[in-house]
Amino acid sequence: MFPRVAIIGCGLIGGSFAMALRVADEVEEVVVFDREAAVADRAIALGIGDRVAPTVADAVSDADLVLVAVPVGQIGAVLATIGPALRSDAVVTDVGSTKGDVVVAARAALGARVDRYVPGHPIAGRERHGPDAAQFDLFHGRRVLLTPLEENDAASVDRIAAAWRACGARVDRLDAKVHDDVLAAVSHLPHLLAYALVAQVVDAADAELRFTLAGAGFRDFTRIAASSPELWRDVALANRAALLLELDDYRARLDALRGWIADGDGSSIERMFATASVAREAWREGD
Amino acid sequence: MFPRVAIIGCGLIGGSFAMALRVADEVEEVVVFDREAAVADRAIALGIGDRVAPTVADAVSDADLVLVAVPVGQIGAVLATIGPALRSDAVVTDVGSTKGDVVVAARAALGARVDRYVPGHPIAGRERHGPDAAQFDLFHGRRVLLTPLEENDAASVDRIAAAWRACGARVDRLDAKVHDDVLAAVSHLPHLLAYALVAQVVDAADAELRFTLAGAGFRDFTRIAASSPELWRDVALANRAALLLELDDYRARLDALRGWIADGDGSSIERMFATASVAREAWREGD
Repeated sequence: MFPRVAIIGCGLIGGSFAMALRVADEVEEVVVFDREAAVADRAIALGIGDRVAPTVADAVSDADLVLVAVPVGQIGAVLATIGPALRSDAVVTDVGSTKGDVVVAARAALGARVDRYVPGHPIAGRERHGPDAAQFDLFHGRRVLLTPLEENDAASVDRIAAAWRACGARVDRLDAKVHDDVLAAVSHLPHLLAYALVAQVVDAADAELRFTLAGAGFRDFTRIAASSPELWRDVALANRAALLLELDDYRARLDALRGWIADGDGSSIERMFATASVAREAWREGD
Repeated sequence: MFPRVAIIGCGLIGGSFAMALRVADEVEEVVVFDREAAVADRAIALGIGDRVAPTVADAVSDADLVLVAVPVGQIGAVLATIGPALRSDAVVTDVGSTKGDVVVAARAALGARVDRYVPGHPIAGRERHGPDAAQFDLFHGRRVLLTPLEENDAASVDRIAAAWRACGARVDRLDAKVHDDVLAAVSHLPHLLAYALVAQVVDAADAELRFTLAGAGFRDFTRIAASSPELWRDVALANRAALLLELDDYRARLDALRGWIADGDGSSIERMFATASVAREAWREGD
């Protein structure tokens, strides 16, 4: 049970976290802050928060748990602002899709208080964003990855893990570098690819016809292209080293495919497609 | 009402078409043929067909309507085989994802009888294939694109259109070249991209961890990578000219993105992402 939880950033993830803790009866009061006052007000109207704090420092000043749910490019600045206002026994976590850069920013922002900050990343998103997209069961059965710091004491990590479990999530711990490398491949790169494809359709002279004739395959493939541009811009820059490695690997695969298509090399094409198809069939989790 | 319908190829599409006509009470007898005898038998067991024909020519010899639902690379050979066996008043259609190459093959295969063949393409798929994936409502509310030949008489086109409408589909007519150009962008290229991404994850040293940590975004993005490798190999080769144009456009976009990420050019990244996000939000059909 957390008497007071502060939510910094009242979007899809921050809102869903607060709703999940409320439904689980694990929180007494939720204080919210958002850089956009209208978003914070909306979060109150939706029952996500009990009250809006006038400043981000006020939001955390009496909180037991602080969730920082802002785009990764802003996490350092938020932590620097809230650091001096944190209660000495508060625990802080974030929900950023990258961890290496956020940890660097957190150490710079929090100094010795970084021991209260446990980096986290729920593998649960939707392409819609904002508080209206929040849902109490967003994390049910989903993984939350924590990448604890050597400075963290076990009790802080356990409290953050307990909060996520109360939201219905499964909690895993792993190294921040491993996290970033893996997510570059299975999350960040796909977002890039989906955005690029939709941008290509938009730019076509017959874009309207193309959207009209696009079917379910296009729908699923491009669903993540409706995600927040700002959030994913930050991710692309924050995880750039790992992402560029994955992107270069991918471009090499497209180059190979291009050659096979131009040469009419059906067996090489089919071999790649079959490798993927068998693996994707085998991976059905949540499908 | 079609007294006798022949289904050549008892997979997802052929099976669903037969089931839909049955449910609509628009067919008396469904005769099936599949190059794999076990698949044809399974189609009977599932209620898709009434009887299995011993040869493809036998299947069509007394049919009013023939649906050729085989990978595009095989359509020409099937049409060449069934041509001489067709009743003079039969109508024939296919379900291939490409149309230009299929029309060339059909003219070569059918000669003067090509007037009975109306090229078609239902924009309705699933990533699962085979008769067990068939469902009577697969085409409900979906588009079916017909690309009629100048040789077709209006009555033949109308009969094929009527059959698809009986399956619950909306029928549009368009030029075969336009069809292939548009589908290259919104269907064929996304399949290629999804296959390539899953192949990349498979090839990673930590593939198992990557699949374990992949979430809903990866799931949707890669769903089409479970599709039939043979079918999509054929599509990639059949529509190669249009597909290579789209692929080259796409590679140029990835090159640009790569440069922006390497240079830390967040505003260019965000501009592309925002263009895509706004367009994808606006395109919600069937979502």
